[in-house]
Amino acid sequence: MELSPLQKARYEYRPKLPEMLKDDIGNIKAVEGRNTQSVSDQEEIEKLFPNTYGMKEVAFAKGENHAEKKRQVVGVILSGGQAPGGHNVVTGLYDALKKAGKDNVLLGFKNGPSGLLEDNFIEFDDKYIDCYRNTGGFDIIGSGRTKLETEEQFAVAAEVCKKHGITAIVIIGGDDSNTNAAVLAEYFAKMKTGVQVIGCPKTIDGDLKNDVIEISFGFDTACKTYSELIGNIERDANSAKKYWHFIKVMGRSASHIALECALETQPNVCLISEEVEEKKMSLSAIADQVASSVAARSAKGDNFGVVIIPEGLIEFVPEVKKLIGELNDLMAIKEKEFNALDVWEDKYAFMQKNLSSESFAVFSILPLDIEKQLLMDRDPHGNVQVSRIETEKLIISLVEAKLKKMKAEGKYNGKFSALNHFFGYEGRCAFPSNFDADYCYSLGYNAFMLISYGYTGYLSTITNLSKPATEWKAGGIPITKMMNMEQRHGAKKPVIRKALVELGGAPFRYFSERREKWAVETCYTFPGAIQYYGPASVCDITTKTLALEQEK
Amino acid sequence: MELSPLQKARYEYRPKLPEMLKDDIGNIKAVEGRNTQSVSDQEEIEKLFPNTYGMKEVAFAKGENHAEKKRQVVGVILSGGQAPGGHNVVTGLYDALKKAGKDNVLLGFKNGPSGLLEDNFIEFDDKYIDCYRNTGGFDIIGSGRTKLETEEQFAVAAEVCKKHGITAIVIIGGDDSNTNAAVLAEYFAKMKTGVQVIGCPKTIDGDLKNDVIEISFGFDTACKTYSELIGNIERDANSAKKYWHFIKVMGRSASHIALECALETQPNVCLISEEVEEKKMSLSAIADQVASSVAARSAKGDNFGVVIIPEGLIEFVPEVKKLIGELNDLMAIKEKEFNALDVWEDKYAFMQKNLSSESFAVFSILPLDIEKQLLMDRDPHGNVQVSRIETEKLIISLVEAKLKKMKAEGKYNGKFSALNHFFGYEGRCAFPSNFDADYCYSLGYNAFMLISYGYTGYLSTITNLSKPATEWKAGGIPITKMMNMEQRHGAKKPVIRKALVELGGAPFRYFSERREKWAVETCYTFPGAIQYYGPASVCDITTKTLALEQEK
Repeated sequence: MELSPLQKARYEYRPKLPEMLKDDIGNIKAVEGRNTQSVSDQEEIEKLFPNTYGMKEVAFAKGENHAEKKRQVVGVILSGGQAPGGHNVVTGLYDALKKAGKDNVLLGFKNGPSGLLEDNFIEFDDKYIDCYRNTGGFDIIGSGRTKLETEEQFAVAAEVCKKHGITAIVIIGGDDSNTNAAVLAEYFAKMKTGVQVIGCPKTIDGDLKNDVIEISFGFDTACKTYSELIGNIERDANSAKKYWHFIKVMGRSASHIALECALETQPNVCLISEEVEEKKMSLSAIADQVASSVAARSAKGDNFGVVIIPEGLIEFVPEVKKLIGELNDLMAIKEKEFNALDVWEDKYAFMQKNLSSESFAVFSILPLDIEKQLLMDRDPHGNVQVSRIETEKLIISLVEAKLKKMKAEGKYNGKFSALNHFFGYEGRCAFPSNFDADYCYSLGYNAFMLISYGYTGYLSTITNLSKPATEWKAGGIPITKMMNMEQRHGAKKPVIRKALVELGGAPFRYFSERREKWAVETCYTFPGAIQYYGPASVCDITTKTLALEQEK
Repeated sequence: MELSPLQKARYEYRPKLPEMLKDDIGNIKAVEGRNTQSVSDQEEIEKLFPNTYGMKEVAFAKGENHAEKKRQVVGVILSGGQAPGGHNVVTGLYDALKKAGKDNVLLGFKNGPSGLLEDNFIEFDDKYIDCYRNTGGFDIIGSGRTKLETEEQFAVAAEVCKKHGITAIVIIGGDDSNTNAAVLAEYFAKMKTGVQVIGCPKTIDGDLKNDVIEISFGFDTACKTYSELIGNIERDANSAKKYWHFIKVMGRSASHIALECALETQPNVCLISEEVEEKKMSLSAIADQVASSVAARSAKGDNFGVVIIPEGLIEFVPEVKKLIGELNDLMAIKEKEFNALDVWEDKYAFMQKNLSSESFAVFSILPLDIEKQLLMDRDPHGNVQVSRIETEKLIISLVEAKLKKMKAEGKYNGKFSALNHFFGYEGRCAFPSNFDADYCYSLGYNAFMLISYGYTGYLSTITNLSKPATEWKAGGIPITKMMNMEQRHGAKKPVIRKALVELGGAPFRYFSERREKWAVETCYTFPGAIQYYGPASVCDITTKTLALEQEK
């Protein structure tokens, strides 16, 4: 592999550890706190996790190590979408494990959870590990989306662990993967396999956070990468003064990324899915909001701007949800009749006849190509594929229509020329920022400490993250503490609650207090590329979201 | 304006100057070299530039300054598309001018060349200038695309200069803008206005280069920004192992950006427009090249990859050029007949009947939506709009068709799932890399030296750029030296020759010697984000293109 100069330089970076983990492993003690209970549905969840429910919180501190000494054979798994820093969780885990005992072994299961089921792994050594220190991507062992959730899978996993004398599994993943880690831990405990399970909180989406997880890893680097690009585009908009840029950013189920990017770059408009849902905003209301910024800026002679749109927006618009539901029901009942129609005009008339008048009104304001896509391009179950809609283009076309109307009414007299962008894959595998490199290394290192003290069903936690790394705190919490019961695929299941953007939270409030000014004036901020060297004020600060949340 | 931490830090950066410019302005002497002549069409060009043709090359060196002392009032103009570093040309010019005399004045004409015609400018002072040091964008005064090319415009410009006592104009622009700078210089000389004109070579496209310009500014930063993203996507592809990413990069008339990005990131395929034209490649041949990489990788179990496509590709495909020409001719003659056709099938049949069989064959392999777009979505003159074609999507659809055929023939048995990206606006306004910050500052500083020595119709040149800045050389060359006569809009005109990718040049040869390996194996390189601090090996190196060209 040909290495870039930055990659070579990053190999030399020494991630920062929290103070209590810096010492020799023999000088780290576990301090147990209070018993825990799940965030809600305590009885049901306790019943489902008889062996792993209610365990104590753990914090590490300087002091004599009182863990039972034994040889550890640990397996690690990367689960789900890539997030910057995943490699550092592995290298931190490896370093701690080798520090604790030269004969300890770290196995990496390949291509996600399926690697465990297929007994497909590599054994790490120094040489291999050193090629992945402080780098982006999950290519160290690959990732995958297989879910570990059935008893059959657990039995296979138990067998593979037994075969190799595995003492613990570390699962690096998002809310679903950590939920499954807890279920696996319970199974292993019930079956007295002696295999422990530890989770690590990963996702660029930032929706795996709660009282004990301040932020999932990868969010910092991904947002900084998108913000670099958005800032560059803002500067371009402000130089060329002729385009409105509509920028969609990843984040299907929560708008944390969009919000953080807005805090970093101060665009003219940023839409937040959670607000759209909460306020029951219609497509027309969304378009009004954008069009009014376009018109206000145009009145000042500024026919340019920047709009940030979260990837999942459209699925949060109540009237669109209703339309989608009706379309799916309709297709289930009258698919044959619909498919028999040849000409578009007939299909359109069919919709007018069969949809409720509210839903048809929504359908009819969609641009023609999106109408066609919704009806023609359905999934194998016949369902319309809302995720295929290019939301940024839809918003542009709705805004264009609004502006045309406003022009006719004499309320707007500008030029509107729009460009669209989507940033997602660009940020998932960036070299981790110093923050993510440090945080992830600490998470992995700390995961080993939890293993060595015999914990299972725990999440590795590093907290106090808005402070310098020396002040970070290391510990663990039972995964069941984060759980509640939710309806999933028709059944009630114990899951970690997804964290959406809170409209009462500090980050959204900071944004909403300023956005009226941003909508009219040019308040752009240009973050520039992630820096790994140089002043700490440039290189080591984390997201505005975290800073604002921790200020409270 | 809220400033990002990086922006604050970049204000403090002190750009590096070539050794001979570092000294006090009183210790910089001009050394004249040989008389010059244009690269071709010498007689014609001499006739067009009787007052500014054939002037001597100039180099600066340490020695007593022998320039005539006079108060300078300089106007500066940013022309055309943004390129990182433009602000530093202005700050370098400002610093030299103020160093030479406190009462010297720098005026910035707003929104491009039209600012000069409209007498619309600001006068710079320290406070204003300091807000733009080492930053991206052209927002310091804005840019514009008005061309200064008519005698009427020149007369207005002369009047504006006279009104404000302007002694020189600095035009920061690409090949066209510098051509026009030379024509303006000739006019000013002929009219004995006493106003000098100096050009500075700008364009991210990298196509303004020749014997005396090693590289235009902005190319370095823009390519590094795109390469950061391409590298991140490569790492994502290699982690997720399920997508082929088709990435279009800016560069309509030359493929320097695509080639440089390929050298930086080693993708599986990079198409080069100049090669497509030279080898008269058909769309089918292009699709074959990509499909054969897909198939070869798939045979190894790798159903993922990365392809780089230059923005202008399709206009270099000879058969497409021919088709476009025929379509335009056809529409000119039979537009009414065509427009009278209602149904798509009739329009298609009309094409079959009226196009040559070769061109119809090309037309018919285009995806349906592109066929429709070409015929329906024409410009005000009725011409088809080839620039509207989303080349990356076209290539994907042609490759899909190839693979389907190969599958039917048993030559391919993989999965092909493609995603597309376009990177352009993301790079034009990035914070300039150290290279571009230093280079641009030197260009501006040096432009003032040329002014103070009384030169006009010169381009500011900084050379030996593949070496550390201390070894750079500063000087100037008459713009007419770079000219030849070309057919433009039906008339023969003196212009600076655009530099296309040379298939015999070192950068392309380096690429072509390795691409067969890259097409099959995974040789990705991950450049990461531009670094402004840290080891010189990471922060101060410039493009591979320049390094390879200067090695020869």
